[in-house]
Amino acid sequence: MKRLIVDMDDVLADATGQFINYYEKEFGVRIERSVLNNKNEGEGFPDNHSTLREFPYRKNFFRDMEPNPGSQEVMEKLNRKYEVFIVSAAMEFPQSLPEKLEWLGQYFPFLNWKQFVFCGSKAVVYGDYMIDDLPHNLERFNGEKYIFTAPHNMHINHFKRFQDWRDIESQLL
Amino acid sequence: MKRLIVDMDDVLADATGQFINYYEKEFGVRIERSVLNNKNEGEGFPDNHSTLREFPYRKNFFRDMEPNPGSQEVMEKLNRKYEVFIVSAAMEFPQSLPEKLEWLGQYFPFLNWKQFVFCGSKAVVYGDYMIDDLPHNLERFNGEKYIFTAPHNMHINHFKRFQDWRDIESQLL
Repeated sequence: MKRLIVDMDDVLADATGQFINYYEKEFGVRIERSVLNNKNEGEGFPDNHSTLREFPYRKNFFRDMEPNPGSQEVMEKLNRKYEVFIVSAAMEFPQSLPEKLEWLGQYFPFLNWKQFVFCGSKAVVYGDYMIDDLPHNLERFNGEKYIFTAPHNMHINHFKRFQDWRDIESQLL
Repeated sequence: MKRLIVDMDDVLADATGQFINYYEKEFGVRIERSVLNNKNEGEGFPDNHSTLREFPYRKNFFRDMEPNPGSQEVMEKLNRKYEVFIVSAAMEFPQSLPEKLEWLGQYFPFLNWKQFVFCGSKAVVYGDYMIDDLPHNLERFNGEKYIFTAPHNMHINHFKRFQDWRDIESQLL
């Protein structure tokens, strides 16, 4: 069985949507997702960047994210064909650790806690395929690297790309 | 720089001592450490095995552990010579995740959160050396495997062994 490493924020979970929601709640302005295209993470928002950087430290920021469309159904199928590990660089946000565990239990109940990895650097994991939205996570990986489309990575051209979960389904299943 | 993977419970931290402390508080009997020798984890205690299995789910069980003698001083030196990752199979105990992070911050402040990995299975990490007290963590590792002496592994003979942190110091430094 080939080993597949899957990221959480902006792959399984709609982290960008959560930033947009928090920004709206805080500042009363709803930012269009497309405004964030081709900008580095956080930099697409018009202003208030220091507050934006605080959002991930707030209680329930990670717990209340929505799963990305198709992620649950496609992950259930992938989990039968691959040795799946969910690997999240969560260590920067201590309160996110139990929240992420609960979140996975809620939306991906067919996965086992033995498949979860919360780390600081993904350089320590190995496998055959990695799906991630952040280039620096992919760069040190030994296997095949796939970038998962998010506004902040649309300008990155040196990885194979999955546009969305339907794309993963058609290419990996 | 060679990569060194180091376990927490019963390697950095005196988990066995914490079980003995909790057992004494609960049942009024102080178990000698040597009574636990050559018995599988938990099985050396005379009775109350089901309560024993609950201890790791209790608040502060992991937060209040003592570091093993010499672990802090030797880790600080190892951290200059090796690419160190602290890898703990913590996912079974959700409340342990922030506790372990705080514990590492208190006793190993020279380590960075980028060096921490909390996982369900250690099969997903790779490196040059792994130090662990549990045979099943070592078995799927690709590099050199070292068992760290704890009462529950004294009867295991098929790994190289570190008796204590002084032994690590003399062999790896």
